[in-house]
Amino acid sequence: MSKVAVIMGSTSDLPVMQEAIDILKGFDIEVEVDIVSAHRTPEKLFEFGKNAHTRGINVIVAGAGGAAHLPGMVASLSPLPVIGVPVKSSNSIDGWDSVLSILQMPGGVPVATVALNGAKNAGILAAQIIAATDKCMLDKILAYKEGLKMKVIEGAKSLENS
Amino acid sequence: MSKVAVIMGSTSDLPVMQEAIDILKGFDIEVEVDIVSAHRTPEKLFEFGKNAHTRGINVIVAGAGGAAHLPGMVASLSPLPVIGVPVKSSNSIDGWDSVLSILQMPGGVPVATVALNGAKNAGILAAQIIAATDKCMLDKILAYKEGLKMKVIEGAKSLENS
Amino acid sequence: MSKVAVIMGSTSDLPVMQEAIDILKGFDIEVEVDIVSAHRTPEKLFEFGKNAHTRGINVIVAGAGGAAHLPGMVASLSPLPVIGVPVKSSNSIDGWDSVLSILQMPGGVPVATVALNGAKNAGILAAQIIAATDKCMLDKILAYKEGLKMKVIEGAKSLENS
Amino acid sequence: MSKVAVIMGSTSDLPVMQEAIDILKGFDIEVEVDIVSAHRTPEKLFEFGKNAHTRGINVIVAGAGGAAHLPGMVASLSPLPVIGVPVKSSNSIDGWDSVLSILQMPGGVPVATVALNGAKNAGILAAQIIAATDKCMLDKILAYKEGLKMKVIEGAKSLENS
Amino acid sequence: MSKVAVIMGSTSDLPVMQEAIDILKGFDIEVEVDIVSAHRTPEKLFEFGKNAHTRGINVIVAGAGGAAHLPGMVASLSPLPVIGVPVKSSNSIDGWDSVLSILQMPGGVPVATVALNGAKNAGILAAQIIAATDKCMLDKILAYKEGLKMKVIEGAKSLENS
Amino acid sequence: MSKVAVIMGSTSDLPVMQEAIDILKGFDIEVEVDIVSAHRTPEKLFEFGKNAHTRGINVIVAGAGGAAHLPGMVASLSPLPVIGVPVKSSNSIDGWDSVLSILQMPGGVPVATVALNGAKNAGILAAQIIAATDKCMLDKILAYKEGLKMKVIEGAKSLENS
Amino acid sequence: MSKVAVIMGSTSDLPVMQEAIDILKGFDIEVEVDIVSAHRTPEKLFEFGKNAHTRGINVIVAGAGGAAHLPGMVASLSPLPVIGVPVKSSNSIDGWDSVLSILQMPGGVPVATVALNGAKNAGILAAQIIAATDKCMLDKILAYKEGLKMKVIEGAKSLENS
Amino acid sequence: MSKVAVIMGSTSDLPVMQEAIDILKGFDIEVEVDIVSAHRTPEKLFEFGKNAHTRGINVIVAGAGGAAHLPGMVASLSPLPVIGVPVKSSNSIDGWDSVLSILQMPGGVPVATVALNGAKNAGILAAQIIAATDKCMLDKILAYKEGLKMKVIEGAKSLENS
Repeated sequence: MSKVAVIMGSTSDLPVMQEAIDILKGFDIEVEVDIVSAHRTPEKLFEFGKNAHTRGINVIVAGAGGAAHLPGMVASLSPLPVIGVPVKSSNSIDGWDSVLSILQMPGGVPVATVALNGAKNAGILAAQIIAATDKCMLDKILAYKEGLKMKVIEGAKSLENS
Repeated sequence: MSKVAVIMGSTSDLPVMQEAIDILKGFDIEVEVDIVSAHRTPEKLFEFGKNAHTRGINVIVAGAGGAAHLPGMVASLSPLPVIGVPVKSSNSIDGWDSVLSILQMPGGVPVATVALNGAKNAGILAAQIIAATDKCMLDKILAYKEGLKMKVIEGAKSLENS
Repeated sequence: MSKVAVIMGSTSDLPVMQEAIDILKGFDIEVEVDIVSAHRTPEKLFEFGKNAHTRGINVIVAGAGGAAHLPGMVASLSPLPVIGVPVKSSNSIDGWDSVLSILQMPGGVPVATVALNGAKNAGILAAQIIAATDKCMLDKILAYKEGLKMKVIEGAKSLENS
Repeated sequence: MSKVAVIMGSTSDLPVMQEAIDILKGFDIEVEVDIVSAHRTPEKLFEFGKNAHTRGINVIVAGAGGAAHLPGMVASLSPLPVIGVPVKSSNSIDGWDSVLSILQMPGGVPVATVALNGAKNAGILAAQIIAATDKCMLDKILAYKEGLKMKVIEGAKSLENS
Repeated sequence: MSKVAVIMGSTSDLPVMQEAIDILKGFDIEVEVDIVSAHRTPEKLFEFGKNAHTRGINVIVAGAGGAAHLPGMVASLSPLPVIGVPVKSSNSIDGWDSVLSILQMPGGVPVATVALNGAKNAGILAAQIIAATDKCMLDKILAYKEGLKMKVIEGAKSLENS
Repeated sequence: MSKVAVIMGSTSDLPVMQEAIDILKGFDIEVEVDIVSAHRTPEKLFEFGKNAHTRGINVIVAGAGGAAHLPGMVASLSPLPVIGVPVKSSNSIDGWDSVLSILQMPGGVPVATVALNGAKNAGILAAQIIAATDKCMLDKILAYKEGLKMKVIEGAKSLENS
Repeated sequence: MSKVAVIMGSTSDLPVMQEAIDILKGFDIEVEVDIVSAHRTPEKLFEFGKNAHTRGINVIVAGAGGAAHLPGMVASLSPLPVIGVPVKSSNSIDGWDSVLSILQMPGGVPVATVALNGAKNAGILAAQIIAATDKCMLDKILAYKEGLKMKVIEGAKSLENS
Repeated sequence: MSKVAVIMGSTSDLPVMQEAIDILKGFDIEVEVDIVSAHRTPEKLFEFGKNAHTRGINVIVAGAGGAAHLPGMVASLSPLPVIGVPVKSSNSIDGWDSVLSILQMPGGVPVATVALNGAKNAGILAAQIIAATDKCMLDKILAYKEGLKMKVIEGAKSLENS
């Protein structure tokens, strides 16, 4: 069974990152949640990054704000695909620092970056990564996309009737 | 065997996107390359996006510049993980348009965005996505990362000796 | 008689887009309103874009936020003039993503972009497009502009008297 | 017969604006070209803006760079649809000033803004505005879009064969 | 006696522009206040710009927001020094459009731009312009600057005592 | 007779600032040129700022790049109107630092900021400041503006004939 | 014993700068607090900058917002290390002006810049500067960093138990 | 005797970082130079960061570009003052990513950031940090500042004579 680790730099990132956890649980994917601060707990970061793939984790979702080094440093340490969520934290300059310090990784060490505060999409992307080689999960993704369509069509209908 | 599709909006994107193709071939991953323009060949885009997962493709890498809609529209049509490469094309405002129109996808439809012109990292990320559930590919990624380290250490040595 | 379609990516864009609908109705132009999401209902987008000009529509107004692909994709599919309204949605980075992903279209596929949240101006522009070849509508535009002037002059007078 | 005026703030804008002229001539649309500087020939600007619609002009294309006031001031004076081309002139800050001073018009006075240096698209948009109520021009637009598609498909084929 | 005209594009700019009026009155400079919209009352703009220097006005302060063309267009029409105040209006993108469309004037037609919402400084600058050739006003400016210093020193003292 | 001081932070700013000197000489205004570095010669800055108005100078033009403190610090020390020229120096981030550190002065201490590298306009503005209370200089400004118009009209004619 | 001066441009910066004062007191470092405005009290700035190192001060922390010249001007006058705190003041454009006018100092005159509103880090950095040559202070820094780690680990635990 | 470590993420950063090395040697400060890549040699980063203060190093200068995590991660691991140099590398978006990912560190872990490519200032700042508690080095800094002044005064003289 597949497993996704959702980590974040601070408990203050949890309200944003919860959306990733919820969507993954909705896809019946096992989720491990932890606080790992690149700047305040570097040893834990190393321990986590070095061993995640040996503990049965398949994908890592990492959220951080400001000079957000957590996703990139985990990507430095782990061979697993790392999804980065730029968080618009209180100390961020409108989110630009969060976005650029996660997105602009040097050649050799990618981070799969999603939109600012886009934790929901990070969860979906993690599911899609599993679905890349798992027919059953692919069907769940197809069903999820069908659901998105239905909501828009209902919205359009309610507009018509108003 | 895994297969990655590398598509781009224009032949002018090929010099940038070639790095993704090369890295994937270096990992012995089958690659399919095509030009698909969201704005000039929307029917081909639909055909491609709707059927990629039924043709044995596991991951899609899509590069585009300016108002770059290709990665997001393919993500809209396909259940597969889509990696977006913002290309700093000649008509781009320093690359900001390319980055933002790929990264800032709405909730429900993620694109795994890499750095501006980061096609090499898109190739590595595609390999990591396959490696998420493929032990053999994971070992290749670990070896690749070991190679990165060696080059830095050699660079440091040459500095010492100079 | 002329007809303008006003479409948007989500019902949450309606408060902004309503201004376009209101101004068009004020010019006695027939308006068709619909929700068409580029990312969640791509088939509806195709259907809409491919057929709008065969259904008697003359101008399309399309509003979207974030990585806003709706206006550009409709412009890709339809020969009609498409007016794009960048919406400052909740998931947008201060509106920059909305603006750039609508404005920076590649050569061959223009979108007539108006100001951030400028739905009112999108409605006026649609009326002006009809007026380009319709003397009667041109007179309405001239009258509208006269009205704008009067309001400023009244404002100046109230200032004088205060 | 339809007529489009292509104006620009300086002869130095001509290399960019020529693309609009060429595309319009390709659509067999009559083109009038002039230099009108908002800041150095304000009387000519007034004269032009006030009378364009009485001289048989249907659409105005206006290009300018830096603090680019020409498109907006013409839109202030004329009831016709005005297409603004932000020019990345030598005195511009990477084009941002050109884009924002054309795009961000106040409610009541729209400018149909195209991409930075997007004069080609301004020409196409002008043709589409005429096509909005002219079946024959609409067929030309459809043919033009078909041509765009063919070029991409040829590019894709040459890629395949290389 | 010297006279300064304070004009603005809309009554909604008055709360910001009032600071310029107040400071000028504090320097016993005659002030004329008016609403002149570049985009909605272009004839009034022309009338104002062409004649201001013949009506005894020495300096013009002009405030506007968004695609702010008022200061630059007045500078185009008048030989007098024009001080531009970028207003952070509700339709502005964080004030960047207001700043750039006032500041980035082409060679030949300067606007003396002050900070975003810096109407107070526009008033002081107008007084300094008069003081450039008026010894009495220069003494008032020196006294004003002495007053600024005193307030800081008092603030420092209150800090000390707290 | 009026006198303008043109100062700059470094000899490397001279190619840009020469345009201010040339335009002022063209208006027969006496010009004093000096290098005054806020960061490397703070004592000279103080000496200059404190005494400029006592030495017969009427207007100060100050150019600097990067964290450009010279114009603001001179404005802090002198009661005279200070015109700031943001220079796009080699160590500047696309000129944004130069612009913002000159423009965004706090309430009480204005700097009349012109466009990036806009030294020519700084010279014209200095002449206009003198013209604010000098009828003869005002006529020169009117003649200068007439000359600008003539050049555009000639450009338009050459376009017509080509 | 070591001593740090914490200065700021205005009493309105105190709520932000208090964090620097508090952290320094927590490290038992003597702190001197003062209001020094580069633009309103330039003489006090000179006096302060010229003499700080002769009065037993070891490090200077300077906070300012908008066109923030205080840190750079103090660095110009003093041989001591100057730490600059960009303050997001009410007249700032989202803090960009504060950051750039402190950070982008020319070669020869550095300012050690911390994050926007990062006064707490300025205090820690001042302590680290003292610790660079003071074993006892270095141990306090090590203890402080241990405390940071503990808080994260506790946060992680509370997450686990929730 | 004091010792400064100058590290950088890649040998390609050396041309920029050499300026820091040269200035430190000019102050007769012992310098240790190494390549430490946060993303490619994370173990070396840990080793370096954990032990620098035990090996007699007093100050660390770290340069990196793009998503520049090296200075922040070293600051996370070491109690010493860390000076960060944002490098405008080839993969950077005009340097903004380098600046923001170094500057915007979270509360608790400061990096003393200097200007983009400001390695020279990083060297001077390192010397000033040593000078904070070293009278002899302080005199060298004072002499260096005197030298800066002399060069400006010579430049001003050559201007006068030209």
